[in-house]
Amino acid sequence: MRRLSDLGERELIRRIARASGPGEGSDVILGIGDDAAILRTRPKEDFVTSTDALVENVHFRWSTQTPQYIGRRALIANLSDLAAMGARPIGFVLALSAPPDLSLSRFDGLFAGLLREARSFDCPLIGGNLARSNQTVLSITIFGAVSKGNALRRDQLRAGDALYVTGTLGGAALALARSEQLGTSLRRLPVPRIGAARALSLLKGRGACIDISDGLVPDLQHILSASGVGADLWSERVPTTSGFSAACRHLQLDPNRLSLAGGEDYELLFSLRRSASKRNSLRELSDRLGIAVTQVGQVTRETGLRGVVSLEGFRHY
Amino acid sequence: MRRLSDLGERELIRRIARASGPGEGSDVILGIGDDAAILRTRPKEDFVTSTDALVENVHFRWSTQTPQYIGRRALIANLSDLAAMGARPIGFVLALSAPPDLSLSRFDGLFAGLLREARSFDCPLIGGNLARSNQTVLSITIFGAVSKGNALRRDQLRAGDALYVTGTLGGAALALARSEQLGTSLRRLPVPRIGAARALSLLKGRGACIDISDGLVPDLQHILSASGVGADLWSERVPTTSGFSAACRHLQLDPNRLSLAGGEDYELLFSLRRSASKRNSLRELSDRLGIAVTQVGQVTRETGLRGVVSLEGFRHY
Repeated sequence: MRRLSDLGERELIRRIARASGPGEGSDVILGIGDDAAILRTRPKEDFVTSTDALVENVHFRWSTQTPQYIGRRALIANLSDLAAMGARPIGFVLALSAPPDLSLSRFDGLFAGLLREARSFDCPLIGGNLARSNQTVLSITIFGAVSKGNALRRDQLRAGDALYVTGTLGGAALALARSEQLGTSLRRLPVPRIGAARALSLLKGRGACIDISDGLVPDLQHILSASGVGADLWSERVPTTSGFSAACRHLQLDPNRLSLAGGEDYELLFSLRRSASKRNSLRELSDRLGIAVTQVGQVTRETGLRGVVSLEGFRHY
Repeated sequence: MRRLSDLGERELIRRIARASGPGEGSDVILGIGDDAAILRTRPKEDFVTSTDALVENVHFRWSTQTPQYIGRRALIANLSDLAAMGARPIGFVLALSAPPDLSLSRFDGLFAGLLREARSFDCPLIGGNLARSNQTVLSITIFGAVSKGNALRRDQLRAGDALYVTGTLGGAALALARSEQLGTSLRRLPVPRIGAARALSLLKGRGACIDISDGLVPDLQHILSASGVGADLWSERVPTTSGFSAACRHLQLDPNRLSLAGGEDYELLFSLRRSASKRNSLRELSDRLGIAVTQVGQVTRETGLRGVVSLEGFRHY
């Protein structure tokens, strides 16, 4: 089995550059190979950037996940942060720290996964860094662009706003619990809501937005706190896939807990001003955003979150 | 002694945000606290970005370096990458992975060092990520801006160009060797040549540029290879501080080896077209760039690097 140490840094970088291509285009003036990459937005756009790290045995395990899955998941989490801002992807850089005895097949698989999502979302790898470490750490910084003044933000909730989520929740937590109980590997991949968020960013009367990475309740609390308001959450309306409750009970899991506090679904939680909420039916909103949308509550002037008191195990939120 | 695990992620992030300030200004529309930061360049500027990682016991040691020194050094290396492009700094993000039992004083010291350089170079911390790991890894991605089409690049050498370096070389390698031999801690800090590089980027007849992080010969080979040309290097003209040779011999070190292949001086290696070289005396160039400039060779159509054959131990370059 060949290992990273058999190739050395320069050859590994050549290998990555070959697999990813130059990445240059209308947004990327200069990609991999210089001291820095050069990016250009279109006129009247701002840059958006976010960083995230995945640590071996904390966020992923080589033993239970395929390298491709780990790579895809890593980029999806970052793409979802762009979605939360209503941004279109431009590119990403990767600082990879890994043990010299990491197998080349894991290394290649990781990049195959990253580059697969990169191609799907037109978000090329434009630079990076390789370093030696005891434990593999993937640190990704992603870049996007959003039209000036139209970025979706966490601090834009207002009392009276209607609260919505896209898609269904709890699926990622259920898949994780199932894979842990059954000892199978986890393969379910979420879809970053890039297109839906861009449509939302252009909608008159839009409020705040966040991607649901920690779970509906914790992420709702993030935007409540950033905006200085409170909310009523209609727990019973939180959308899940059909058969979700039965599947949870089959595994002796609390379905409410999974749908309200299970992380990594990467759906959007957003608000609309009262008038925009009245103007747009759920059907119309779903059509505009290209994904099912459900109202799950309302923003209140009074701070604090109401509607989840009956759940067990919510003390730590 | 208090440790990271005593505070938890959210409180640590608050602590960093308090220490760094919001970072918002004319370039940073939205800093720490949302899903992503929002940046804006001035009209007719491109965006420049670079990433780098420092790994505990590979790139730094808690036992021989102060946390402040490690933090300052980390940002300086990244600022130097912006300098190599002729860019002005806009901000940076940090993905920090660290063991939960890391002392809070090391954590605070690290940020004090980072933020000190950040303030000196008007390059605020605009976002980041904290994760648990066995080994501390600082992964920094830095952002800057350069006027469109004026970025300094590695691939712009042409046959006939004159090759120059700023400042003096070998000092970082000598300080490192001295600290290793004497068991003292390393405190010498290089200065990223941001201002000099911006002046160079506006100079008519400028060629290629790189920052000297690996050492003069390896970094010269990077730009030769990116540009598809060769060079004569005038080894005997490579500038060092007064007393450098004596200090090297005192420690039984080869001064040529240190000045030609010692890394981390972060001076600039750049070229000027033949006509620009004739037009600007060394004195005039030094005045324009605000730092002593020395010609150290010439670019040739014939590939390969000549002038270092007499050195011992250069086989691996």
